[in-house]
Amino acid sequence: MKVQQQHYRTIWSDNAGDSVHIIDQTKLPHEFVIVDLQNVADAIRAISDMLVRGAPLIGATAAFGIYLAMRADGSEVALRRAAESLKASRPTAVNLRWAVDLMLAELTPLSTNRRADRAFEVATRICNDDVEICRSIGQHGLSIIQDIADTKPNESVNILTHCNAGWLATVDWGTALAPVYSAFEAGVPIHVWVDETRPRNQGAHLTAWELAEQGVDHTLVVDNAGGHLMQHGLVDVCIVGTDRTAASGDVCNKIGTYLKALAAYDNKIPFYVGLPSPTIDWTIADGVVEIPIEQRSAEEVTQVQGLSDSGEVTSVMVAEGRTQASNFAFDVTPARLVSGFITERGVCPASADGLASLFPDMTHG
Amino acid sequence: MKVQQQHYRTIWSDNAGDSVHIIDQTKLPHEFVIVDLQNVADAIRAISDMLVRGAPLIGATAAFGIYLAMRADGSEVALRRAAESLKASRPTAVNLRWAVDLMLAELTPLSTNRRADRAFEVATRICNDDVEICRSIGQHGLSIIQDIADTKPNESVNILTHCNAGWLATVDWGTALAPVYSAFEAGVPIHVWVDETRPRNQGAHLTAWELAEQGVDHTLVVDNAGGHLMQHGLVDVCIVGTDRTAASGDVCNKIGTYLKALAAYDNKIPFYVGLPSPTIDWTIADGVVEIPIEQRSAEEVTQVQGLSDSGEVTSVMVAEGRTQASNFAFDVTPARLVSGFITERGVCPASADGLASLFPDMTHG
Repeated sequence: MKVQQQHYRTIWSDNAGDSVHIIDQTKLPHEFVIVDLQNVADAIRAISDMLVRGAPLIGATAAFGIYLAMRADGSEVALRRAAESLKASRPTAVNLRWAVDLMLAELTPLSTNRRADRAFEVATRICNDDVEICRSIGQHGLSIIQDIADTKPNESVNILTHCNAGWLATVDWGTALAPVYSAFEAGVPIHVWVDETRPRNQGAHLTAWELAEQGVDHTLVVDNAGGHLMQHGLVDVCIVGTDRTAASGDVCNKIGTYLKALAAYDNKIPFYVGLPSPTIDWTIADGVVEIPIEQRSAEEVTQVQGLSDSGEVTSVMVAEGRTQASNFAFDVTPARLVSGFITERGVCPASADGLASLFPDMTHG
Repeated sequence: MKVQQQHYRTIWSDNAGDSVHIIDQTKLPHEFVIVDLQNVADAIRAISDMLVRGAPLIGATAAFGIYLAMRADGSEVALRRAAESLKASRPTAVNLRWAVDLMLAELTPLSTNRRADRAFEVATRICNDDVEICRSIGQHGLSIIQDIADTKPNESVNILTHCNAGWLATVDWGTALAPVYSAFEAGVPIHVWVDETRPRNQGAHLTAWELAEQGVDHTLVVDNAGGHLMQHGLVDVCIVGTDRTAASGDVCNKIGTYLKALAAYDNKIPFYVGLPSPTIDWTIADGVVEIPIEQRSAEEVTQVQGLSDSGEVTSVMVAEGRTQASNFAFDVTPARLVSGFITERGVCPASADGLASLFPDMTHG
């Protein structure tokens, strides 16, 4: 998508693979900073420190991390070590494991000196595939938004989203926001309610910024507001992303997603998940019980980053020194609360049968 | 309750009524600042700028505001003007209207020169009555917490609360937190999950601070976290306050309360409201439709106040300049999601019949 009218992906390399570039998302929206990943340690740090985030982009970054490792040392030991460290860099996103396992499967059979070139090819393919997946999600989601628009002529369709599942969370287009961008390009009038998404404020920092860069009408709200908006008819549809989706249809996404799904269900508002198939964990039956939830540092809760009066990106303490905080990064929305999945192959019910109907080639057992 | 081991109320006057003191709650938790209210304009500003907040404390401050107006000018015109301005200072809290109407009823029949003394008496009585109401809420709520404690020996009862309905929201004791303090004094092991409560962070700034001052075990979480905590058995009971309660039992409280009530209901966790009877609006049948919801400035959403590295209370911008924000201050939790009301007269179902059973002398019609 566009930054200052110029097209970017969130991760890219020159053709020779000499360098891999990412956008430092921790600096947004106040600074647009491009970072070079020089080696696998840079890639690991970019994931764990959340310079990149979002399940699809984490997967793509891990793939390029394997490439950077192989470029330095194509040995079996180096490959295994890079794979293990990358998998440990964020525990929840299933795409991370998926991308690393794909790289391992492609590279392990090769001789040492052929691994770097192949790693670059596969990482590039993972990125290109992600773009195509997201573009398809956008097209399928567009139908949903268009159908709502047809019921309210001359009014905007109000879409609520949580966290950032936009192009910044993927290689391009986004998952939850791909339908938004498709609708925008198709001229469907839309307005997006952007959840702030504490503690890291991905809504305020990333979603609001990327919608502004594309020119999409939007309003920032605190995470507490969605229930009120839905009670009062101010939301037509919710669309969120997912970090890991159980085979049963339970959706693990940014903490707070479950609360919005409850409010949507209580107010009979459709609640969709933009779901690229690499985010499905076919091994998990009960998402609430089985998906491990990453706990991050208390400082993300007790401190808030923003721009100071003097124009510096800085943090302030919102609680005093005695205050302990807990920081679960994700929650799980039971499938029963989800109206449907918008996947690259079409829209399906949020259930084991729904997923099996679109992905018969991927289901296990 | 205590600040640095010394007992305070949130609003107090010397016996002669020479001065009225409040705590500037916008400075907490980083600074403990006492402010003198010199005249009715000071009282109005203290309410609208939220130096004082919380339905009961707003009512008490408005009563003292009338006193300050009468001390300067006991005329009918001055009385009406003060009453109107005070009522307009915050639109949602019913206690504000209740306290001002009570003052009008007491003062209007009196001659001009007797109004100031009587206003001081009535304002003082409103404060003392509030303390007694809250103390009783604490005692009735203690039974609920004790019953839960009996089911889990040697473990803490985990109580989730939203916003600040502690002693800082009242004259003393609090509404939602009165049962917490009563349980703490009775030696019942408790732990409180404190919702941060964006946009103004009353949880992080006020509830965490007052719990720390009393020595009550607590953990700060972002507003997004409660659903996950409840799904995983980490919350035994929710207790919140109310700014206005419909005769039907619908509860208007800080934005986000409704989302927590939905999560409690979905996970079969009891959800109680600490309810002083002056907060009941007997004229309202449908809370969602009829209660006007205050909209506050967008800056409360786009900026966050905290302590800088250099130890100054300052604000940072969390969104960039292009971002528009919306800021509804309250939402309404339908009575069907509330397990019960903890009132000064005991615990009752959240329904018209429930309220009528405890307050037959107050119901209309």
